[in-house]
Amino acid sequence: MSRTDKPILVFQTDFTYAEGAVSSMYGVVKRVDRELEIFDGTHYIPQYDIWSASYRLYQSLPFWPEGTIYVSVVDPGVGTSRRACAAKTASGHVVVTPDNGALTHLARHIGITEVREIDETVNRYPATRGTSVFHGRDVFGYTAARLASGIISWEEVGPAYPVDEIVVLPIAQPAVEDGVVTGIVDIIDPNFGNAWTNIPLAVFEQAGIAYGDTVHLRVHHGAELVFEGSLPFCRTFGDVGKGELLAYTNELMNISFTMNAESIVERYGIGYGSDWLVSFEKVG
Amino acid sequence: MSRTDKPILVFQTDFTYAEGAVSSMYGVVKRVDRELEIFDGTHYIPQYDIWSASYRLYQSLPFWPEGTIYVSVVDPGVGTSRRACAAKTASGHVVVTPDNGALTHLARHIGITEVREIDETVNRYPATRGTSVFHGRDVFGYTAARLASGIISWEEVGPAYPVDEIVVLPIAQPAVEDGVVTGIVDIIDPNFGNAWTNIPLAVFEQAGIAYGDTVHLRVHHGAELVFEGSLPFCRTFGDVGKGELLAYTNELMNISFTMNAESIVERYGIGYGSDWLVSFEKVG
Amino acid sequence: MSRTDKPILVFQTDFTYAEGAVSSMYGVVKRVDRELEIFDGTHYIPQYDIWSASYRLYQSLPFWPEGTIYVSVVDPGVGTSRRACAAKTASGHVVVTPDNGALTHLARHIGITEVREIDETVNRYPATRGTSVFHGRDVFGYTAARLASGIISWEEVGPAYPVDEIVVLPIAQPAVEDGVVTGIVDIIDPNFGNAWTNIPLAVFEQAGIAYGDTVHLRVHHGAELVFEGSLPFCRTFGDVGKGELLAYTNELMNISFTMNAESIVERYGIGYGSDWLVSFEKVG
Repeated sequence: MSRTDKPILVFQTDFTYAEGAVSSMYGVVKRVDRELEIFDGTHYIPQYDIWSASYRLYQSLPFWPEGTIYVSVVDPGVGTSRRACAAKTASGHVVVTPDNGALTHLARHIGITEVREIDETVNRYPATRGTSVFHGRDVFGYTAARLASGIISWEEVGPAYPVDEIVVLPIAQPAVEDGVVTGIVDIIDPNFGNAWTNIPLAVFEQAGIAYGDTVHLRVHHGAELVFEGSLPFCRTFGDVGKGELLAYTNELMNISFTMNAESIVERYGIGYGSDWLVSFEKVG
Repeated sequence: MSRTDKPILVFQTDFTYAEGAVSSMYGVVKRVDRELEIFDGTHYIPQYDIWSASYRLYQSLPFWPEGTIYVSVVDPGVGTSRRACAAKTASGHVVVTPDNGALTHLARHIGITEVREIDETVNRYPATRGTSVFHGRDVFGYTAARLASGIISWEEVGPAYPVDEIVVLPIAQPAVEDGVVTGIVDIIDPNFGNAWTNIPLAVFEQAGIAYGDTVHLRVHHGAELVFEGSLPFCRTFGDVGKGELLAYTNELMNISFTMNAESIVERYGIGYGSDWLVSFEKVG
Repeated sequence: MSRTDKPILVFQTDFTYAEGAVSSMYGVVKRVDRELEIFDGTHYIPQYDIWSASYRLYQSLPFWPEGTIYVSVVDPGVGTSRRACAAKTASGHVVVTPDNGALTHLARHIGITEVREIDETVNRYPATRGTSVFHGRDVFGYTAARLASGIISWEEVGPAYPVDEIVVLPIAQPAVEDGVVTGIVDIIDPNFGNAWTNIPLAVFEQAGIAYGDTVHLRVHHGAELVFEGSLPFCRTFGDVGKGELLAYTNELMNISFTMNAESIVERYGIGYGSDWLVSFEKVG
């Protein structure tokens, strides 16, 4: 079997590159099968942030070839009773991850078709029995590598369990009522400082909001009003001056808001998750 | 065609690894052609810093095999009228980039032989029409991948335009007059804290400055004198004590200055660009 | 010879990805031989920190396939008289590094079987004679690539020298006396904030300390007591509440201590090295 017949492995973790963990984890993959291709998804998921892990899978996994195995290790419960699992998506990808909420966005937006609990009595790097703190290297990476190389079949990952037992975090759904579009800040881009909602462009269109319109935006963190203001709905950042506010459609076709060449996230202290509520209303 | 017959793709951006953009961009490359090899140039170009993008191309691209396609995405004007282009260098490499000044150093030091504007009606990831904010994934990476895999020819990138229309940032040239060598701080090394000028070793030699000599250095930011002092011209850092100043020849054979095991950049607040003027004069 | 018959190259440095050095270094490898596989070990070794370089080799190298060539460039003495070397380990790996202490942990824990000084008159990237400051690109990466590709034999690296001439940093050995286990903080995990000692689990067992026991821990930096307290010896982090202290066995089977989901390193200012002494004693 040639190299390119085997699935690519993509890894995302909260390990950073500050120490040797990523290297050890990739070394084990290469010990299993020299032919496997490995990519960094990112190793800079915020520490212990399962929500971000879930969002980054939704953001990036669909762009990889079908069959790609995405290994996600944000695992505050390592060594406890949370399940280690491998899940198949409706898009034809596989995710290997602790079943701790990391599959939330994929389950909602793409769909999970099958899930198996990793049987650690078989699928564990033999040299490391006796330590319980590095499942990225010893369980998740090792199992993904063996699956990708064909050493184990899908069934040999471990026993299947019902898809509706997958741990899913609560997400408020976008809605339109009386011309007001509501949703949440689903994630921020910590680099460019943009805020991304869970409201698809199609919902804006349904509410009669089009490029060139001005919208009134309110952002609440729970009961607290964090931001309120009016801004144009634009195609791209350069449609407004530097430092000016705008709403736009992001790369996942969801409504986002930011400032041109500045961070709205830092300026107003905007966070993300189920309790970060947004509403948009067309002005004039 | 085998894997190693196809050009390598190297990417440099200001995306960081803080979110999922790099992963999505690389996924699209692999969807185009599983056989393509991808490398990180760096994803830590300072945000919106076209000058740094230009310098890093000049610093790194020539060391890659001929034929390598370097994708550079520092694109504050994404979605506006700036051209997206692919350029051939006299060194036999290809750069895919917004034509916004990123080709400045390559044009000056290596030479650009041909340039084409990417025709986005053809060379755009089909699944993403409707978003205008992520050309790294949808245009630059996608086009570079299709070119590397042979799906499109060089001509099919899009229409050629004159090389002298390429956007080039102004750079003061190094000069020698009355024994005084002048130039600019062309870039800093933000990690080790060194300052790199645009003065080649050959210009120092022409001015009669040799290893072991002492030079008097002045650094101006515009009209403001930021640093003035005398320092030895050495072969390597260890030729002076820790924390001591030195001038040396950097890895691109240009004159640089720093402190041994300390950051001259942080100590004196040294920046880079056309308005960061340096002069060296031999002492004694 | 096919791609997977050639050794993998793994690189660790203190270069970061803030500028173009890593890209240039990898480009040279690919110029030597397109078929070579390159991995980032990490480029975030703390600047000039030879001890950390040594520890990360010990932590990660053994998990890579035998034959893997690990290039380590933390080189405060670049261009001075320190030896550039290639060393074979008892585990069947090769390390290419300045011989400045970076082999300390491998020499102690794995064993070095042979070492050769790199002959720079032969093994130096030809285009770069004249600069003495970037041996990562011009000597270490270039030599490792030529060795991996079979262009030079092991003997052609340069002359062998006695293994006992390798520069080794002093490390206090773990010991048990009157039920008190002593050792050092060998390294910290700067990401999750854990402190890793050089005391193997087997030494704890020899001292009669078992999971579930409570231990009294003292950490001294030289003569100064930095931390003192009692904590449970657990299998994993989740065995205690968030923010609570614990001792555990890390992924290298050495005793470590931390707080669940917090950084003990930041909280108490814990460092690492030969003068960071720890003692554990069973309580009750």
